[in-house]
Amino acid sequence: MPHPFDPGYVAEPFLSLCAGYPEADVYPADQFRIEWGPIFHRGRLDGSARVLVIGQDPAQHETVVRRILVGEAGRRAQGLLAKLGVLHSYVFINAYLYSVYGSVKARTRKNPRLIDYRNRWFDALLVDRQVEAVVALGHAADEAWKIWRVSPAAQSVNVAYAAVTHPTQPESSSKGDKAKLAAATKKLLQNWSTALQTLSPSVQHPDVATPLAPYGDKWADGDRVAISGSDFPAGLPAWMHEQDGWARRAGADDLAKRRNITLTVPRGIVM
Amino acid sequence: MPHPFDPGYVAEPFLSLCAGYPEADVYPADQFRIEWGPIFHRGRLDGSARVLVIGQDPAQHETVVRRILVGEAGRRAQGLLAKLGVLHSYVFINAYLYSVYGSVKARTRKNPRLIDYRNRWFDALLVDRQVEAVVALGHAADEAWKIWRVSPAAQSVNVAYAAVTHPTQPESSSKGDKAKLAAATKKLLQNWSTALQTLSPSVQHPDVATPLAPYGDKWADGDRVAISGSDFPAGLPAWMHEQDGWARRAGADDLAKRRNITLTVPRGIVM
Repeated sequence: MPHPFDPGYVAEPFLSLCAGYPEADVYPADQFRIEWGPIFHRGRLDGSARVLVIGQDPAQHETVVRRILVGEAGRRAQGLLAKLGVLHSYVFINAYLYSVYGSVKARTRKNPRLIDYRNRWFDALLVDRQVEAVVALGHAADEAWKIWRVSPAAQSVNVAYAAVTHPTQPESSSKGDKAKLAAATKKLLQNWSTALQTLSPSVQHPDVATPLAPYGDKWADGDRVAISGSDFPAGLPAWMHEQDGWARRAGADDLAKRRNITLTVPRGIVM
Repeated sequence: MPHPFDPGYVAEPFLSLCAGYPEADVYPADQFRIEWGPIFHRGRLDGSARVLVIGQDPAQHETVVRRILVGEAGRRAQGLLAKLGVLHSYVFINAYLYSVYGSVKARTRKNPRLIDYRNRWFDALLVDRQVEAVVALGHAADEAWKIWRVSPAAQSVNVAYAAVTHPTQPESSSKGDKAKLAAATKKLLQNWSTALQTLSPSVQHPDVATPLAPYGDKWADGDRVAISGSDFPAGLPAWMHEQDGWARRAGADDLAKRRNITLTVPRGIVM
């Protein structure tokens, strides 16, 4: 059985972007897990993307597969793309190259070197390309977009834009409270339905023509969409893109946790 | 500071080789850790390789970085290449795509589907290419070479060949006995010096002209050579290619160990 994969960074400007990236002088080690290296993108870099999704920062699963938004947030974002009829013509980048540790200081967020590098990705993906719509997941993504939007290179670019609630905001805001989770989920889905109305008219070249269907009050079948192996590097096992929770940060204290990622093959894979 | 990386599998026949690889029906799960996926190569796939090194199978570090021979065995092999003047014009493949679990049965080793796929890699790297010398590390590699060597496609290929002792055979054979380790190391280095004499005359296009210098009785400064970040995927932190021992299989029993890889950032990296 063939296993399509993402060949990655094979042409300019991506070869240069992935060889020369900001390091600890731009992403301070007290605010980012720079020790695990930068993680750049997921999806199409060959100019075929019709929708750009902006996320926030990579976590532990992303660190292992070296692609962003590969877990639950990624599957929910895939569902949003699917409602726009976009099944493979998409690309994801994050506001931050490294995993956030604690919180990001304003001075870091506004660092021109952080912004300039990120803007080079926006330029590469949007200027003289065929992207028709952009979705920002959460506040950091929205800020990244707004900063780029006023840059000179952005002025020639005409795309629809929606900033939406981060896909896992209901979980992070409700902290285990089921009623809060249900309310936050409902609110998120309303927010996403509104975004669909904003974006849908501009997505003129979906992979599959798809009638606009808003979300309900809770996640329904089909709202979460599996991430294709085509988005992952060559040779990664199927469980790494089909499942979640196989990478965690373990350790007796904060430093030990920061230094650790523990990978566990899900049950039922090893005979 | 720029961080050159290996763009990986960007052109045919490698795109097809890395999308369509043998799975559990060819590499049985009782003999291979197929759950972690195949790991294909390290080094140049663009036709610039002058030396091909054949290894045995990938271990846990290789599983994480998705490139082969990235640990101590790899550094010793780099040292051998350096003695031939080959600093970047090399390519490594393994006899087996997956990490060996226990031992490999003769029936598996002789499976025509395993052999045919591996021979396609040999064909891709050797037929109408400019490789001048081939080194096999250990018995499985030597067997892989000998099987390919009698295939029809191989008949047009003229290269020097040496089968050498596996780079970490002294450690694995001496099991902590220092005297045995020293004796086995001396024997290995003699074996490798002999191989250098076999191979050197055929390496006509080294990266740097290098006078032939045999090994001493023990590892000397310069016999182990760092693996360049250029051999690793984009964005991997420097400690993943400079250091060893950061990935281990941990668990209370064999199954738990098999399902686990624990990554630990080396001391001194996280502030």
